[in-house]
This record gives sequence, C-alpha cells and structure tokens, in this order.
Amino acid sequence: MTLSSRIQHPLLKQKIMSAESAALLIENGDHVGMSGFTGAGYPKLLPQALARRIELANQGDQKFSIGVWTGASTAPELDGALAKVGGINMRLPYQSDPTCRARINAGQMDYVDLHLSHVAQIVWFGFLGKLNVAVIEVAGVLPDGRLIPSSSVGNNKTWLDQADKVILEVNAHQSAALEGMHDIYYGTERPPHRKPIPMEHTGDRIGEPYLRVDLNKVVAVVETDLPDRNTEFNAPDQTSEKIASHILAFFEEEVKMGRMPPALLPLQSGVGNIANAVLAGLNRGSFENLTGFTEVLQDGMLAMIKSGKMTMASATALSLSPTANQEFLQNLDFYRDKIILRPQEISNHPELIRRLGVISMNGMLEADIYGNVNSTHVMGTRIMNGIGGSGDFARNAYVSMFMTPSTAKGGAISCIVPMVSHVDHTEHDVQIIVTEQGLADLRGVAPRHRAELIIQRCAHPDYRPALLDYVQRAQHNAQAGQGGMHTPHILDEALSWHSRYEREGQMLPKL
Amino acid sequence: MTLSSRIQHPLLKQKIMSAESAALLIENGDHVGMSGFTGAGYPKLLPQALARRIELANQGDQKFSIGVWTGASTAPELDGALAKVGGINMRLPYQSDPTCRARINAGQMDYVDLHLSHVAQIVWFGFLGKLNVAVIEVAGVLPDGRLIPSSSVGNNKTWLDQADKVILEVNAHQSAALEGMHDIYYGTERPPHRKPIPMEHTGDRIGEPYLRVDLNKVVAVVETDLPDRNTEFNAPDQTSEKIASHILAFFEEEVKMGRMPPALLPLQSGVGNIANAVLAGLNRGSFENLTGFTEVLQDGMLAMIKSGKMTMASATALSLSPTANQEFLQNLDFYRDKIILRPQEISNHPELIRRLGVISMNGMLEADIYGNVNSTHVMGTRIMNGIGGSGDFARNAYVSMFMTPSTAKGGAISCIVPMVSHVDHTEHDVQIIVTEQGLADLRGVAPRHRAELIIQRCAHPDYRPALLDYVQRAQHNAQAGQGGMHTPHILDEALSWHSRYEREGQMLPKL
Repeated sequence: MTLSSRIQHPLLKQKIMSAESAALLIENGDHVGMSGFTGAGYPKLLPQALARRIELANQGDQKFSIGVWTGASTAPELDGALAKVGGINMRLPYQSDPTCRARINAGQMDYVDLHLSHVAQIVWFGFLGKLNVAVIEVAGVLPDGRLIPSSSVGNNKTWLDQADKVILEVNAHQSAALEGMHDIYYGTERPPHRKPIPMEHTGDRIGEPYLRVDLNKVVAVVETDLPDRNTEFNAPDQTSEKIASHILAFFEEEVKMGRMPPALLPLQSGVGNIANAVLAGLNRGSFENLTGFTEVLQDGMLAMIKSGKMTMASATALSLSPTANQEFLQNLDFYRDKIILRPQEISNHPELIRRLGVISMNGMLEADIYGNVNSTHVMGTRIMNGIGGSGDFARNAYVSMFMTPSTAKGGAISCIVPMVSHVDHTEHDVQIIVTEQGLADLRGVAPRHRAELIIQRCAHPDYRPALLDYVQRAQHNAQAGQGGMHTPHILDEALSWHSRYEREGQMLPKL
Repeated sequence: MTLSSRIQHPLLKQKIMSAESAALLIENGDHVGMSGFTGAGYPKLLPQALARRIELANQGDQKFSIGVWTGASTAPELDGALAKVGGINMRLPYQSDPTCRARINAGQMDYVDLHLSHVAQIVWFGFLGKLNVAVIEVAGVLPDGRLIPSSSVGNNKTWLDQADKVILEVNAHQSAALEGMHDIYYGTERPPHRKPIPMEHTGDRIGEPYLRVDLNKVVAVVETDLPDRNTEFNAPDQTSEKIASHILAFFEEEVKMGRMPPALLPLQSGVGNIANAVLAGLNRGSFENLTGFTEVLQDGMLAMIKSGKMTMASATALSLSPTANQEFLQNLDFYRDKIILRPQEISNHPELIRRLGVISMNGMLEADIYGNVNSTHVMGTRIMNGIGGSGDFARNAYVSMFMTPSTAKGGAISCIVPMVSHVDHTEHDVQIIVTEQGLADLRGVAPRHRAELIIQRCAHPDYRPALLDYVQRAQHNAQAGQGGMHTPHILDEALSWHSRYEREGQMLPKL
C-alpha cells in the first residue's frame, strides 16, 4: 500500500502536509495529547519537527514549551527529542526516556505520575485543563473518515474527543492488517451518567474497531513510514528463571488447594525482562487455556498465543521485539482473533480487573519488610519511570504479586529494605513478593510475621543478618516503650540503608 | 414485640439457648466471623459469654483464643471483652477498641488491616482459611427462616454463607421497622463467573431485604434486648467548621467551573467529628438534591436527609448518636425509602465507587509535603484504628479528599510533615488535602509544587518555616547532586520530626 492510499478520505487528503508545517500549528504553552504506549504507536515525525522549532525559538528570546500527555512511554523520537531541547514543561502520565528522566531529576521538567486508568477520566472531568492539540498515529483513514488505530490505543480516543485541533500521522509502516484487531469502547460517560461496562471475559468485544474523529478538527495529516521503537529482550537469565519457577510453583499450589481455577485467571504482566521470563516459564509449564488481560502485550505473551497455551489476550499496546514483531506480522491471520487492543482506560479499568479476577504480576524497585512496595523512586528522590498500570492492577487484582531480583548494582543494593524510600503500593495492596530467593505469601499475615517471611524467603542471604538485626532491635525498642509492636521501626535508622548507599555506594550496614 | 416473637421459624425457636451455652459451641483456634460495623449491629451477649469462658480456660492450662473477623469496628462488649482476656489471636479487618489497640501495639495480638471491600472476596477465595463460626446479630427471623438484618450489614452475608456453624443473636432492641431497608445482593461470584453489578444510582435496589441462611447450620439462637454502642458527637468546633468551609468553597468553585454537577455527586464521608462537621456545613450550604454513597451513615447525613438536602443515602451501617437514633426511630417511615443498607463489599465496591463518581472525604493522621497520607500508624509504629474504607473510596473516587486539623496534641504534632511515617494513600491517590488553614488542590500538580501548596495552604503557621527550611535544604542538596529534584528529601532527616516527638514530646525542630 502506498502512503497516500492509506488516506482514503478526500478532505483529509487535502490536509496532508510536512511535519514541519504541522508543527507550526502547535503553540507555546499548549497541552498536547500524543499517542504512544510503551514504545508503540507514537507519532514519529511531528515531535521531531516540533523539537527543531522549539530549539530555534529557545535560541532566541522566545521561551517555547508544551505539556505532553501520552498513553505511557514513547521513544527517543518523541520524549527524547522534545526533552532534549527543553520543550516539555509538564509530562504525564508515564515515561521511561533517559533524557526525560534526567531532566525531571534535575528539576528542569515537571512530571505528574498518574495511574494509567485515571488519565482519560480526569481529562474528561476537566481536572488537567484544556487539551489543545491531539497528535495521533494511525494505520490508515477509511473513506468515511474513521481511523484505523495503530499498534497502541492508549488514550487516543480521549485525545481525539477532547482536543481542539487534531494532527494525524498516518504510518504506512504499521501493517494494514491491524485493521479489525482494536475494540474502541464509546460507552464511557462522566458521572452521574455512567453504565456498567458490558465485559465479562477477556475476549469480549464491546466497542468498534475504529477511532472516530470530528473531521473539522483535523488541521494536518502527516505521512510517515517508520517502525516503532522495538527493542530485543534479554534472554531470561538465571535470576529471572528462578523468579519464574517460584511463581509457577505458587500457581500450582493455588490450583491444588482450589484457590485458583485450573486455567488460572487472566494474567497481567508488567513490562521488561523479568515479566517476559515469567511468561516464558508459564509457556513451558503445564497450564492450558490461559488468558491475558494486561496493558502491554510483549514477546512472552505472543509466544504463549503461538504455542496455544494462551487462547486470548487483551491489551492496549503491542510492544514486541523486532523478532517477535516479524513473527506477528507474518502470521497476523493466526493472531487476529486472539488479540484485542483496547483504550487504556478499559485495559486497566478497576471495574474490569476486579470482575475478571486478574492475576497481577509487576516488577518493582524495592519492597520493605512489612510489604510496602516502591515502584518509582530510586533512593526515594529520583524518578525511574513511573507507576504505570501497576496500581490499577495490584489494587483490584485477584492476587497481586510484585517481583524483583533480591539485589541490584552487583549486590550493592538490597531490594528488600527496612523501610522503602517511597511507597507506590501499600501493605494493604501487596499480597505476594517474589525474588530469585523465594516467594513470600503475605495474605492474611500481620506485619511482624510479614517481616519474618519476607526476610527469610526473599532477601539475599548477604542482607538477611542485617535485616534480622534491624527487626530485633526495633522490636526490642518497642518492648521498651519506644514505638509500637504492630509495625516496629527505628525511625532514625529506617532510611539509613538508602542514605548509606548515597554516601558510600553500598547499602549493607556494619553489624 | 416480645423477644420470642422475633423468631418466627419453629426450628430456630428450638435452638434458643443462653449465651453461655452458645459460647461452648466455639472452639479454641476457630475463625469466627462476627457481625458489626462501626459500633452497629454487633452481637452483644455471645462475645461476653465467650470471654468469660476464655478467661476461665486461660486461668488453667488451656490456652484458648480465636480469630475474630468482623465488618469493621464493634464495641467494648465484643472487641473489648475478648481482647481483655487475651481471647483474640488475630483480628481483621478494622478495629477502634482501646483494649484491642493496646494489645496490638504491645505485640500481644495480631492485626491484619485490610481494605473493607476486599474482605468478603478473599474469604470466598480461601485466602484466609476456613471460617468456622458466624455470630450474627439480626433484628428478627421470618417464618421461612430468612433473617431481618440489624443496624449494619457488613460482611454478614459472607459469614453466613461461608461458616460451618451459625449462631444468631436476635436483638429485640433493634427496631422491627428496619425490615425492608436492607438490600442484600446475592449476585456476587468468584471469577471467572462474575457479572457487572447492576447499579447505576445510589438508590438502586439490586438485591433482597433479607439475609439467607442454611437452617441446618444454625447451632444456636441467643435472644438479646440491648442497644448499639451509640455515642454522641462533639458539637462542631472552630477547627471543624473551618475545614467544612474550605470544602464548601471548593465544591462551589468546582460547580462554577463545570467540573461537578450542581447536585454534586454521591458523597462518601468517613467517621468522626470532622466528617460530621463537614456534613453539617453542607446541610447549611446551598447545594440541593445531594446523595450519599458511603459506608457509615452518621448524624450529619441523617440531618441532611431530614432537611431534604439529601434525597438518598446508601451505606452498610447506621451509626447514630443516641439523639439521632431517637430521631431516626421516631420518623422511620420518613427515612425508610431514603436509606439503603448494603453489604460492605457493595457499599465499598471499586466498580460502583468509580461508576457513580463518588466524592470521597476521609480523615487522616498526617500528610506529607508530597501528598502521601498516613491514616493508620501513630509515629509509624503504633496502629490507631485501621484503613477502613478510605482506600476503597479514595482510589476510585471522582475526587479524593483527606482532612485533618493542621496540628494535634495541643500543637506538639504537626499533621503536615516532611515524610509520613507510614503510607496508606500514596501521592497517586490523594487529590485534595484540607486543614483548618486551607485547602491544597493537588490535581495535575508535580511533587515540588505540591510541597509549596501543601505547606502554604495546609500547614500550621508555627510549622511552615521549618517545613520550608526542609524543602529548601532538600532541593539544595539535590542540586548539589545528593538525590533527585523530582521528590527532594533529606533521607537522614525525613522522619526526624517523628523521632523528635517520641524523644521530646514535640515535633518542631530548632531552626
């Protein structure tokens, strides 16, 4: 298919222009809603053209910057390019770009880290102000003006509905065969007019395969032919394999005890190598007829669909490595009826996560001995990426699991600490903690016993003595009247592991 | 109505026995699910008889204790009596009893602090083990064996369904006219068999007015004629009045800006004097046709129904002062069709809270400068009460608000601190913080700007200089490469306000 043949509506054909021309339609201070979720389906030319414009403007007297709202993380061509020239004054709701991260942590850029299921609705509520422009990558435009979504849906429906102006990037590199794989739900409303979301199973289609747009709002159409930022996954290492094996053993026990059905329940899996390794483990395991209800479909889940272990997966983005992407494109007819891409307010909706009974598996930076989890802040002050959908899923899941290697930075950091330096998931929302050392099942367990379990099962042996020592002294102090025995802590020492790491480059205290 | 005339089923009449005899049917180590939510509808004789039995047993060689699961807090006759004799080995999911609290904080009793909407389902999932006995207060038994619920519903449906043995307390003191005010939903299932909950408005009835019980499981019926633990509220003081006025002004602005409808959205209000004062403020304000979707209906909401400001309220418990209770009983025909009592998994259900767009207003112990909230732990180690439903509501609300006086203990404690000593509601879930000083609107605001707002708007003037000093030094350090500027902290000092209070009885640092 040639570039222009992707744009089948005459009015929109007339709006075709260069990215440079389109970039002139965005104004200083605008709130711009861009497509893109985990490196999939983001606009590829407009942001770079805009970055060049901003760079020039900022070389002169004019200070030019915009607010960038997306689905989740994008790519160097979007977040990287705009951040590099100081073009973003505020970014939400999730990013993982090195330049963005550096600028946020240097205090040069504001970042609002939101639950991914909350973003669309708070824009509808008016809580973030007016959305001025939407910049949306699509795979094509139908003769009637409806849009074929790209490799991610994210918040595109909301951006198209809410923005005053719309700029489309029509990317001929996205397979035309994506058409029909999306399910865009147009039944959301603002309270008090909301209805139940009519979905009971992962594979239920409740919407339509196309995005709607008011053609009068479309101010520019930019043609592109560029791939998504696809990166290869690391092959599962020994640590990931061990984490996967603990999780598999847990699932087997749960099924045996009648606490989970034999086909488990819809799986949610966070992004990254460990999540991918867990899915690879499930693909080798004995479970059959699995389903996925997740935000990002990565290589591991695609392999499970291919093998037949997984019969249906729902997500908001396809974020595949080049190898897996090739497999997907070559066999798209096989995958077509086994994958549904939905808006992120649906893929991550608390109502659906609770109803379906999703099994939530997310990575984390660190957990503390009482089961609080830090997913976002390195040593309490520097943002890593963001909370993403981990809170949407963990809070409403059937079982919420968090996983990490027990140490980081070659052992200098213990991922099990006395007190986490930032809390993204509270003790009330964390049921299972897994490291390569083992799995701690915290369901129905009171804080002091959680500490025992987490230290014995999950902490690295090098750190266990220091953690036990902390616990014993905290309990001793509490018995002596300094603090309570419900959640014993030594307040002056609780965060000392982190400050020691900042000072000395290693967490381990001298005993 | 005489005592026995409340029990209209012949088989259950035969099961009538003394509380002492019924207490013999509970065994050491049992998990016992008891009725009761915020001092309403708890069993009043059986727990005391059981406490006497346990006291005797524990004077001898026999160690006797049980796990006590409830709806939420109960009363001295239940939590107090059993805790006093060391009869509780594990308590969940919420308590507010002084004896319980003391034993938990002394390490003599385990406590698992759960979201109230999670309790029923995790029992169904089998995550807490077998429920051996249910002890449920009811207002009466119909000829066909169905049960007229009491002044709270809580987890009673689940306890009756899941327990091996059932002991009923039929309390003739509860008005017979409560009959018909409850709505017990029997449509819940375990995944993957769950359906949408068919509720779209606060006043929708989706269940039936009675609790079902398998009569073969009923091992004892105990007759009582005793009032709920009703305590008077304090008259709103100046601090509460100011908090209420800030919230009213916020609502007025939201309506003016089109961010809330003129009748607002269903109100959730936590327990206690401040919550009550806010409702009193709304009752004097200009809003009309208000609704409530909350867990506990207290005096303030009853007064709003009486005045006509509120047209409908949904809750799981009626927790009224003696004065308000008298008003309620005298005018029950007026209130009958304006109040619905539901199981707590429905009153607090994430699906419904999000769909209805509930405005969530909860008290807290402290907030930090970045908007994290501690609802449960005094100085990070001692449990106060528990998280209750605050997380159910805050996470899924249309707007989540937390309120507290700016200081406690005569000014020795600042309720705005550099870092909270325990996190129950993360920065991602807290939108509005209110003290008598003012209201901080954190929607769409990045961390450093949140700190400015919270300190300027909410902190007590006596603490503002020290908080600003902390922020400035934390930012200075971050600029010098010690930590990040996203959420600047001085890790060695972040919890020093709390440890200073523990040592010196006051939080304020010397500048």
